[in-house]
Amino acid sequence: MPVTPEQQAEIDALRSETVPTLRATAPGIEAHLYKVLPVLDHGFVRVIDYMGDDAAICQAARVSYGKGTKSVTNDEGLIRYLMRHWHSTPFEMCELKLHVKLPVFVARQWIRHRTANVNEYSARYSILDREFYIPERDALAAQSVVNNQGRGEALSGEEADRVLRYLRDDAMRAYDHYEEMISQEGQAGLARELARMNLPANIYTQWYWKVDLHNLLHFLRLRADAHAQYEIRVYAEAICQVVADWVPFAYRAFEDYRMGGATLSGTALDCVRRMLKGEEVTQETSGMSKGEWREFVGVLG
Amino acid sequence: MPVTPEQQAEIDALRSETVPTLRATAPGIEAHLYKVLPVLDHGFVRVIDYMGDDAAICQAARVSYGKGTKSVTNDEGLIRYLMRHWHSTPFEMCELKLHVKLPVFVARQWIRHRTANVNEYSARYSILDREFYIPERDALAAQSVVNNQGRGEALSGEEADRVLRYLRDDAMRAYDHYEEMISQEGQAGLARELARMNLPANIYTQWYWKVDLHNLLHFLRLRADAHAQYEIRVYAEAICQVVADWVPFAYRAFEDYRMGGATLSGTALDCVRRMLKGEEVTQETSGMSKGEWREFVGVLG
Amino acid sequence: MPVTPEQQAEIDALRSETVPTLRATAPGIEAHLYKVLPVLDHGFVRVIDYMGDDAAICQAARVSYGKGTKSVTNDEGLIRYLMRHWHSTPFEMCELKLHVKLPVFVARQWIRHRTANVNEYSARYSILDREFYIPERDALAAQSVVNNQGRGEALSGEEADRVLRYLRDDAMRAYDHYEEMISQEGQAGLARELARMNLPANIYTQWYWKVDLHNLLHFLRLRADAHAQYEIRVYAEAICQVVADWVPFAYRAFEDYRMGGATLSGTALDCVRRMLKGEEVTQETSGMSKGEWREFVGVLG
Amino acid sequence: MPVTPEQQAEIDALRSETVPTLRATAPGIEAHLYKVLPVLDHGFVRVIDYMGDDAAICQAARVSYGKGTKSVTNDEGLIRYLMRHWHSTPFEMCELKLHVKLPVFVARQWIRHRTANVNEYSARYSILDREFYIPERDALAAQSVVNNQGRGEALSGEEADRVLRYLRDDAMRAYDHYEEMISQEGQAGLARELARMNLPANIYTQWYWKVDLHNLLHFLRLRADAHAQYEIRVYAEAICQVVADWVPFAYRAFEDYRMGGATLSGTALDCVRRMLKGEEVTQETSGMSKGEWREFVGVLG
Repeated sequence: MPVTPEQQAEIDALRSETVPTLRATAPGIEAHLYKVLPVLDHGFVRVIDYMGDDAAICQAARVSYGKGTKSVTNDEGLIRYLMRHWHSTPFEMCELKLHVKLPVFVARQWIRHRTANVNEYSARYSILDREFYIPERDALAAQSVVNNQGRGEALSGEEADRVLRYLRDDAMRAYDHYEEMISQEGQAGLARELARMNLPANIYTQWYWKVDLHNLLHFLRLRADAHAQYEIRVYAEAICQVVADWVPFAYRAFEDYRMGGATLSGTALDCVRRMLKGEEVTQETSGMSKGEWREFVGVLG
Repeated sequence: MPVTPEQQAEIDALRSETVPTLRATAPGIEAHLYKVLPVLDHGFVRVIDYMGDDAAICQAARVSYGKGTKSVTNDEGLIRYLMRHWHSTPFEMCELKLHVKLPVFVARQWIRHRTANVNEYSARYSILDREFYIPERDALAAQSVVNNQGRGEALSGEEADRVLRYLRDDAMRAYDHYEEMISQEGQAGLARELARMNLPANIYTQWYWKVDLHNLLHFLRLRADAHAQYEIRVYAEAICQVVADWVPFAYRAFEDYRMGGATLSGTALDCVRRMLKGEEVTQETSGMSKGEWREFVGVLG
Repeated sequence: MPVTPEQQAEIDALRSETVPTLRATAPGIEAHLYKVLPVLDHGFVRVIDYMGDDAAICQAARVSYGKGTKSVTNDEGLIRYLMRHWHSTPFEMCELKLHVKLPVFVARQWIRHRTANVNEYSARYSILDREFYIPERDALAAQSVVNNQGRGEALSGEEADRVLRYLRDDAMRAYDHYEEMISQEGQAGLARELARMNLPANIYTQWYWKVDLHNLLHFLRLRADAHAQYEIRVYAEAICQVVADWVPFAYRAFEDYRMGGATLSGTALDCVRRMLKGEEVTQETSGMSKGEWREFVGVLG
Repeated sequence: MPVTPEQQAEIDALRSETVPTLRATAPGIEAHLYKVLPVLDHGFVRVIDYMGDDAAICQAARVSYGKGTKSVTNDEGLIRYLMRHWHSTPFEMCELKLHVKLPVFVARQWIRHRTANVNEYSARYSILDREFYIPERDALAAQSVVNNQGRGEALSGEEADRVLRYLRDDAMRAYDHYEEMISQEGQAGLARELARMNLPANIYTQWYWKVDLHNLLHFLRLRADAHAQYEIRVYAEAICQVVADWVPFAYRAFEDYRMGGATLSGTALDCVRRMLKGEEVTQETSGMSKGEWREFVGVLG
């Protein structure tokens, strides 16, 4: 369980009482507020606050386009139009604030998305908890033999045992030494900002992360993608559930145009046109490299 | 009156009904929601949505600093500490969305603040209204004789009359021609995206503008400052009222540390130290240029 | 001619003398440095400085991917791979600084691209020149009847004459009054920051604009597109020439994957797959709206 | 030595040949290009490229302020004026690209500065080297007893010995296991993206980091400050040397106004005014909290 009974009690208290507001409110995400969506073995995603809903996207678009948007008769049609034509600013009018607990190596990938606001737990000020990500056995993937950054089959047998033993034992020993180094019993005690350097990248950290919907969808497109590392993808998938409940029109458009869509190059479009006219196109006659052709066939498969 | 009766009716409707929410709610700003704060002759600022309150700033800070923040016993003390030490990320956890109607030349200054989300009324799609900023007589300032970007005394008499007549007549004529050029009666009608080029910079535009509290306070520090152009300063001042009601602790800290404060250079601090020891310091012995010395004397005056 | 003889002499002087540097240098763009690329009637684009070249993109990618990039045997292949997979950070390692003279209504669109550095000529400090964009006769397009933001055929005959007369006369009158209002002969003289409000949006301004290659390509994709307003598109096209000479591999990849490419939704990809299997797909059976279907047919046409 | 003989040979080759350029060139930083500035035990800072110089800052300012800047007669005076009045955009016209090798826990602080471009060595694609930061004995500071995020005296004797032994042994063991887990001899071999999670935060990583001068100075103000963690401060200090040689006017202004300066609150300024009039002001009569008063006395001390 990723939260303590005290934390659960606090969440229950926060969820027990509503206050009246004049603001736009989205019932689908109110149901998520404060709750723990568990991810990995000790991690979670929690919705802390949000601003806006599907209607707020349309409202902002109608400020921009005025009467011009009347031709699109309903909100979902307008949202699909905006998504299809990369009109991103109306989506920036919605905002989401999450509390996330995640391993440090996941946090290091995540923070590369710069257009967001972050407050991370500080290991200079405070003492980290003894919590480490240890993968499930079936997530212990081998290095891919075809792709430098990919994963192959899961390890098995003794190899898997040994990996799990190393991860667990090294984490525990590193934490024991961390505690011992910062201890002030009978010694000065090493500064926290130094002692933390002994801790491995599977230790959990946590942060508040606030982002607008446009940048969130960009994050989800990259991180909920099949090529993303599994350990960040599961966070992205948890957030996808939240977004689907919060702004259902925007999320459906995102699924169709971004997650389910693909960008074809000019060369690739030309091949499609030739194929539709009945021509047999091969990699050799396509004008594409082998890698491009393989991806092209994958998209049209 | 900057809004039509229909718009006022819509605002009244929006304000007539609350819905329950589990989110953090700030009563001080709920009282502002949707209402028109008039600025200049046809402009306004309206609060459309907000996220967070003073407590949300502290909550984010406490995620970062964990138990380290317990030594600061209350929220206002913590907020003052954060502001004093330029810990800006907790302030980014609050967000404000405004609807603003403003002259184009003000919009051109405003948009230079890049860390914000904007949806502006599009004169490519839609037809602009016949509304122009015409200054009050006492805002018709002369060019400063001491400062290239400053204002001097107000113009008077015939000179003021002539300026007002030019501004009004040229605006009306430009708008007449704009209407005539886009008209499709008996002619093709010029594209809106071209016709708009005939309109002067005092025409009103409008936008939705969404910004986090840290970047908003930075905007206010520069634009509510005495050196800012009057026509943008009045917008900043209207927003200051909103912020004071929304996050009173943060706003008071901002007033003390930013608006009322000053940054002294190493040289200036050294002069202060010498003066406190009883030394008579002059510009010549200060190590400062004439301009710096004048500003230094102004701060200590 | 968009520059004065004095300015041309200054450009010639800047181009007359090279200095040795240890930095990466791109001969293709050295040939552009400081020169005036004329755009519209009084505007221009000038390259003032640049950082990096095609090799710098690869160098940054190889820091990221280490030995993993060895499998891509050459720089152009690597750059195409990066572009195809939206690996944008290596493109951020190149930077371009331009001096641009452009009408204010174009500047207002341009500035919406926030991830760039800008220093614009200040009409608070300085006096604007009497230079206005007056379209060529064949650029005097009618409002599109099918698209709220589009252009139709060019105006003709008396209608065109009248539009040109309005644009010219109103600009001249507005500038006459601007000059008269700020004049300090026999009067106080209105502050420049106020007088400028009388000037229409086709007056020219100028700025230094500095941007990284990733964000520049994003700008070009939107603004060199056939749907962009003609008056900004001609600037984007001038910059395209510069980029093609500066980073030829990156530019070719951009042309193929971005300018010549298209993003198809999941629904559209499904239609392509059905069509390739021989199925006759119509709008009714496609699952797309009429607008989407029309765009889809346009892409495959 | 932080680089191998092969790397040194490559650096020597890069430094052995200049090419002519028409761009602005700064001799002071040409002398740094490509060279290794060693930091900590295995880290370094290397200048890879730069754009602009002191004159480029003034050139951009003069575009903005036109003839208005003529009153400041020289470049250094203008740069001081810009710095003093927080006119930050001209400083954004210069750009620096660095290659940095640094421990992961330092990288995690550094990356929080979001307005920069980064390409980091990827431990998903590539194998990390066996290089760990092990502090010098006199950098083994105890936790401060007065400040949650500060350092006290250096540890000594057996305590220091034990800490160094833990850091060294845990790092070596973690790396042994990392190597063993990814090995493909006689086993499948764990994916690199997973195996890296076993490595502690003192392992070295490297990246290309590109930033404009305004944001770089902001970084230096925070990270070269006495309150910054020692291990990032030494990087900031190395970069300070580079900047001082690159843009000497800007760097001197930065030293005076930012590093050597201080921001006083309205309350603090009022106290200074009272003290200059001869009043004895104490914490009790100052209107400041104890913490603020302590800092105030520190500044005026």
